[in-house]
Amino acid sequence: MASHIMLTSHNRGRSGRAPAVEWGATSARARGPLIASLGEPGLRNVIGTHAGAYSVYRALAVASGQLQRDHRPDLTDTAPAVAIGPHPQWSDPGAIVSLDPWGHRVAEEFAHLIAAGMDIRPTIAVTTAHINMPELQAAIAAGRLRADGTVLAANGDVRVTKAAIDPVWYLPGIAERFGIRETALRRALFEQTAGMFPELVTRPDLKVFLPPIGGMTLYFFGDVAKLGRPETKVACRVHDECNGSDVFGSDICTCRPYLAHGIEVCVEMAQQGGVGLVVYNRKEGRALGEVTKFLVYNARKRQRGGDRAETYFERTECVAGVQDMRFQQLMPDVFHWLGIRRIDRWASMSNMKHGALAAAGIEVVERVAIPDALIPPDARVEMDAKVAAGYFSVEAPPAEAELALAKGRGLHE
Amino acid sequence: MASHIMLTSHNRGRSGRAPAVEWGATSARARGPLIASLGEPGLRNVIGTHAGAYSVYRALAVASGQLQRDHRPDLTDTAPAVAIGPHPQWSDPGAIVSLDPWGHRVAEEFAHLIAAGMDIRPTIAVTTAHINMPELQAAIAAGRLRADGTVLAANGDVRVTKAAIDPVWYLPGIAERFGIRETALRRALFEQTAGMFPELVTRPDLKVFLPPIGGMTLYFFGDVAKLGRPETKVACRVHDECNGSDVFGSDICTCRPYLAHGIEVCVEMAQQGGVGLVVYNRKEGRALGEVTKFLVYNARKRQRGGDRAETYFERTECVAGVQDMRFQQLMPDVFHWLGIRRIDRWASMSNMKHGALAAAGIEVVERVAIPDALIPPDARVEMDAKVAAGYFSVEAPPAEAELALAKGRGLHE
Repeated sequence: MASHIMLTSHNRGRSGRAPAVEWGATSARARGPLIASLGEPGLRNVIGTHAGAYSVYRALAVASGQLQRDHRPDLTDTAPAVAIGPHPQWSDPGAIVSLDPWGHRVAEEFAHLIAAGMDIRPTIAVTTAHINMPELQAAIAAGRLRADGTVLAANGDVRVTKAAIDPVWYLPGIAERFGIRETALRRALFEQTAGMFPELVTRPDLKVFLPPIGGMTLYFFGDVAKLGRPETKVACRVHDECNGSDVFGSDICTCRPYLAHGIEVCVEMAQQGGVGLVVYNRKEGRALGEVTKFLVYNARKRQRGGDRAETYFERTECVAGVQDMRFQQLMPDVFHWLGIRRIDRWASMSNMKHGALAAAGIEVVERVAIPDALIPPDARVEMDAKVAAGYFSVEAPPAEAELALAKGRGLHE
Repeated sequence: MASHIMLTSHNRGRSGRAPAVEWGATSARARGPLIASLGEPGLRNVIGTHAGAYSVYRALAVASGQLQRDHRPDLTDTAPAVAIGPHPQWSDPGAIVSLDPWGHRVAEEFAHLIAAGMDIRPTIAVTTAHINMPELQAAIAAGRLRADGTVLAANGDVRVTKAAIDPVWYLPGIAERFGIRETALRRALFEQTAGMFPELVTRPDLKVFLPPIGGMTLYFFGDVAKLGRPETKVACRVHDECNGSDVFGSDICTCRPYLAHGIEVCVEMAQQGGVGLVVYNRKEGRALGEVTKFLVYNARKRQRGGDRAETYFERTECVAGVQDMRFQQLMPDVFHWLGIRRIDRWASMSNMKHGALAAAGIEVVERVAIPDALIPPDARVEMDAKVAAGYFSVEAPPAEAELALAKGRGLHE
């Protein structure tokens, strides 16, 4: 019903020529293409544009005369390296609200419209790669992983399929996920970004928003075609970006160790005939950004009594006003996209992520905690604080006296 | 002079109570605070708001009732762990146009205004950390690095100072850097982002823009206080984000190997009494984003004749319309911020980065190429293409016949 009202109001809107969008329709053609073209404003049926925040760089390229403002991508040879979907969840309008399930198939599904001159672009790309992390070589050397020559080579190389996904928000669905009214969501998005995209409030007929935020990358281990079959066992790590640890190996948190451990779990699952999946979300510093993160590090290490678990979340809240802005409510969408209804091995301790999966009807069979030996020295504060706050652990939560101990290094140690 | 006109037009603008901004003034107070407060629109003197694209998540936090819309950060104990500047370059209005040189010191410089109720926030945060990358342990084992117990511990731990920097664009300065008119820049920024921030075109009196794009992170090795002194030797790697390689070790490019090599060069310089600096820019996929990057990978590997150097840049241009959108013109700002006029060891092969430094008057003494043994198997295509295009190399550029050879793996190898 909601989609019907939307379509009507849309057709009454300023952009009479723009194709209608019926979110959650049973086929790509019935859903309709998403058009963010700048060249023909009359055809646009979304708010925002492609490539998220990188549109600002595109603007510099046009302004400096390096990019034609009417450039159309040549999509020859760019189709997904491996097929993904369609899965039944794609035609449930409430199941997937933060990405376009047809986003990797637009060149195929809308070939006739593209040939007729419409500027329709992929929001998802799927390719293959070989990856090699030094930790996997170490896992082979330690006997935790064994090379099989297919998934994992003796030199530590791992074959993967990977997908990059730009966010595509269906605003009525996002509002419903958060239990708020769509108008309240639109107004907050407009006001709290200091006036980004007035169409959020002036064009209620445009229901789809391409927000200028980072997206996600998926790494698949094993045969992607097996996803969506009930018998396929799945191992998974959902990882939220932490540049300081993921790239540089900063020892104040468990991020890269947990990521590497998650990949081990995924490789094992692929070797056993299942599929491993790492979801990497661009949500630096709990989606608070890195400046806030570093301010909080300083406050933690300078506070009276030193860096300790009992004030771990409080210090973030003083600076940012919240402990966390990652909003795991949207995270399960990617599992619906992949047709996954059950995760057999779940490499995460987060109760927020686990709760979000449960709310989305995705079963988690086994929770896999990070082995104690992989926790870096300065990350003890984080681990104690998280376990005390209800994160999953195989051990009992630390006692109060334990939480009051300063276990983190000082700023000048 | 330009700043004088700006101030006048600014004071005549709608926000009569907003503090004036005199970009490049000799002190923070003379420059004036940058106010992106949403609570008191009349005080705002910038376009956009803090934390870049993460403001979209802040909007979700407010919409869902988890964050007070008038939350003010408590900046207690968050001041920089190590002092940076001021340097003479801070009062040259053309030298630094893409970050706020006073951005880490606002709580100190504008304490009186914050105490009086103004919402002034840091755009830079400076902290300390220990990092540990498996490659550094390997460098110790191979005898390339030796532990000294101060900069580098025997277990591979490295002491660093690090800074997170959010972008702050002075629009007249950005326009000048690109040799275009400010009105053309503003119009492109507005149009090519599909209408983000109408103030770009309606408020010419607002000269400062906080763009919702990723910023940068600096990693310092050695004593930061030595920067800005002519006798201090500096080693540097400017690294543009590549998540697939930096985090996952994808072997199609040299990104993480070059980053690890750059850190080795930086550690050595710190051990010799100089300062090492890694600049990590959030510019995924040459600032084209990861979806475009993966589309290009597919096109490279599927094209007739296979993945080869002679068509390396062309495949990107087909999809994106340009080969690169990183705009190294803005990159030298960070060196001006740090008072650096000479880089003794420069770990990069990019002729674009090198040219940008030269244009900014920063001397590069020695260019350090990546050792051949560190180039991953599938990255040969990239290396040949770059050297043929004028990138720095100690060897002669490859011959034409060499560039026509398919050296990259196929999609299903």
